[in-house]
Amino acid sequence: MNNKKELLTAPVDELRQLGRQAFQGLGLTEPAAQKVAQVLVLADLFGLTTHGLSRIESYGERLESGGISATADPLVETIAPAIARVDGRNAVGPLVGMAALEAGIELARQFGISLVLARGSNHFGPISPYAYIAAEQGFASIIGSNATTTIAPSGGSDARLGNSPLGFGVPNPDGNHFMLDMAMSVVARAKIRNALKAGQPIPETWATDAAGRPTTDPRAALDGFLLPIGGHKGYGLALVVDLLAGLLSDAAYLTHVKSWVDAPDEPQNLGHFFILVDTRRLGSSDWLKARMTDFASILHQSPAIDRVAPVLVPGEIELQKMQRYLQEGVPVDAATRALLDQYASRTA
Amino acid sequence: MNNKKELLTAPVDELRQLGRQAFQGLGLTEPAAQKVAQVLVLADLFGLTTHGLSRIESYGERLESGGISATADPLVETIAPAIARVDGRNAVGPLVGMAALEAGIELARQFGISLVLARGSNHFGPISPYAYIAAEQGFASIIGSNATTTIAPSGGSDARLGNSPLGFGVPNPDGNHFMLDMAMSVVARAKIRNALKAGQPIPETWATDAAGRPTTDPRAALDGFLLPIGGHKGYGLALVVDLLAGLLSDAAYLTHVKSWVDAPDEPQNLGHFFILVDTRRLGSSDWLKARMTDFASILHQSPAIDRVAPVLVPGEIELQKMQRYLQEGVPVDAATRALLDQYASRTA
Repeated sequence: MNNKKELLTAPVDELRQLGRQAFQGLGLTEPAAQKVAQVLVLADLFGLTTHGLSRIESYGERLESGGISATADPLVETIAPAIARVDGRNAVGPLVGMAALEAGIELARQFGISLVLARGSNHFGPISPYAYIAAEQGFASIIGSNATTTIAPSGGSDARLGNSPLGFGVPNPDGNHFMLDMAMSVVARAKIRNALKAGQPIPETWATDAAGRPTTDPRAALDGFLLPIGGHKGYGLALVVDLLAGLLSDAAYLTHVKSWVDAPDEPQNLGHFFILVDTRRLGSSDWLKARMTDFASILHQSPAIDRVAPVLVPGEIELQKMQRYLQEGVPVDAATRALLDQYASRTA
Repeated sequence: MNNKKELLTAPVDELRQLGRQAFQGLGLTEPAAQKVAQVLVLADLFGLTTHGLSRIESYGERLESGGISATADPLVETIAPAIARVDGRNAVGPLVGMAALEAGIELARQFGISLVLARGSNHFGPISPYAYIAAEQGFASIIGSNATTTIAPSGGSDARLGNSPLGFGVPNPDGNHFMLDMAMSVVARAKIRNALKAGQPIPETWATDAAGRPTTDPRAALDGFLLPIGGHKGYGLALVVDLLAGLLSDAAYLTHVKSWVDAPDEPQNLGHFFILVDTRRLGSSDWLKARMTDFASILHQSPAIDRVAPVLVPGEIELQKMQRYLQEGVPVDAATRALLDQYASRTA
C-alpha cells in the first residue's frame, strides 16, 4: 500500500451510495451491496480506514476471480432456541456478518442472550461497526472472527494461529457506547515495516524471527511471526476466538484456514461468532445510562501521566471521529475512490 | 506468605471432607460448605495452590469478622428466558459462583446459551474449576469476575480497575478440555516481590511506579501499579470484564469495589458473569471430539523452540496435575492444613 495517500472527503450518504453501487457493480444484489457498504462506511466513520471502503481492493479482486461468491445468500438456521448457525456460502464477509448480527439481535430480543455461529465466510471487516449497530439498539456484544495464520503458538516456531480480532460493545443509552476492537498481536505488521523503513530496532516483545526467537531486528521480524499480547495469555485468547469462531461454528480453524493472499480464488471458510445480550432485560435505560456515565467518569478522573493525553475509554476515539466526519465529510484515499467509481460505473 | 512451605499430601477425598468440615466450622451449612470445598479442592488439583484451600486463611478471617456472611443463601432470579441474576447476599464467593454456574447450566440446557450475572459476592476462587465442571457436562464457558482496584487506566496514574480474572472452557468429550484462566496483568505482584528479593530489575512492561511511569525498579513497582497485557488492549479487556461482571450485574465496579485487605469486615459487592453454551446443540460428541483433538494436535505439531518445552494447549498443565494428584495425593502446605484442622475441629 502507498503511504502517501491523497485523501478526498465526501458526505457519508454519497459514500454509502457509492459503496452500494460499487458492490452492485461487482455482482451483488442491491440489498446485499447496501449491507456491505453499511459496515465498511461505518469503519471509515470510525477512522478505521484500513478496514473500511479501502477493502474494495481485496474484496473486489476475490469477487472477480470467484474466490468470493457475489451471488450467494447466507443461510440462517436456528439450532437451539437461542442459537443460530449461519452458512455464509462463501458470500462477502460483511454480508455474512450482518446476517449473523441480525439473527442474533432477533434471538436476544426473545431470550435475553443469543449466540450466532457463522461458517463459510470471508474477512468481515472490523468488529466495531457490528458492536455499534448492536449498541444503538441496546444490545451488548462479544464478537470475534478467526483469520489466516500469522502467529506461532507459545513455544512453537511456525504460524499456526490467526491474529484473530475480538470485539466487545456495551451500550450507553446516551450514545457514548463502550466499544473495544482488538487483534491478539502486540502490534500490526505495518508497525514493524515502519521501523524497518526508519532503520530502527523494535522492542523484543513485538515479534519473533523465523525460528520463533524474539527479535529486535525488524527485517528478521518480518520473516518471523507476530507475538501475541501477554505471551501465553494472548496465545490463549487467540485460541479462544478460533475455538468459538472456527471450531464450534463448523468452519475452518488454525491451519485449515486458507490464506486469501496465497490462494485468493479459493474459499477461506472463515468463521465468526456473535454473542448478544439485550441490556433492557437487566435494568431501565436510566439505570444503565447512570452507571455507564459514572464508569467512564471514574476512568477520566484518573490524573493523566501526560497532561495533553487524558485517559480514554475504548470507543471514544471512534465515536468522536464519527461525529466529526458526519459533519465535515468522511476521508477516503484517492485510489479507493477511483476503484469505487470504476466498479460503480458498471451499474450505470 | 511464607515462601518455604512445608508440603503435605493427602488423598482428594480426605481434603474434600476436611474442607467441608472447616467451612462448617466457620458457620456454613453442610451443603454450602461442600460446594465451597469442591471449588477450592479443584483449584488445588489443578496446581493453583494460591487459589485453593489456602484461601481458608482470608475467607476464614472475613467470615469470623462478619465481612462475609456464613449463613447467607444466594438468591437466583430468572430475569429473561435465558438470563438469571444471582444476589449473593454477601455469601462466600465460591458458594455464589456455584449457584450461578448451576443456574447457568440449567438455562443453557434449555436455550442453548445462557447468561448469569452475580452481585453481592466475594472472591470466588480461580475460574478453571467452574470451567471444568461445565466442560465435564458438555458446556463451553466464558466466566469472569471483577476485583479490587490494582491497575491504573492506560495513561492514568492511580489504581481505578481490578486485575480481573477472565476464563474460558471448551469441552473435549474425551476429557481433554480447553481451559484458559487469566488475569489482565502481565505478571502477578508476587513476581515483582521475587525480583526485589533477588535484587534484580524487572522488564519495564511489568509495572509502573506510583506516578504511572513504567519502571524497571521492583521497589518502585511495588509502590505503583501492575501493567495490563498489551497496554491499551489489556486495559480494555479488564474494563470489559468489569462491565459484564460488575456494571451489568448491578454489583460494584471500578473504585466502588471495596478492598478486602483494607476493609475486611465490609461487604465487597463483587460481581461475576457466567456465559454457558451447550455444545451438544452444535454437533455430535464424535464431531466435537474429532475437532478438539485435531485442534490440539495442530498446535502440538509446531516444532518447539526449546526441545524440552513442547507447545502446550491451555488446560493441559492443570489436567495433567489433576491426574497425578488424584493418584499420588494433593499437596497442601502445612499452615493451610493446620488452619483447616483447627476450623474443622469446631464441628466435632
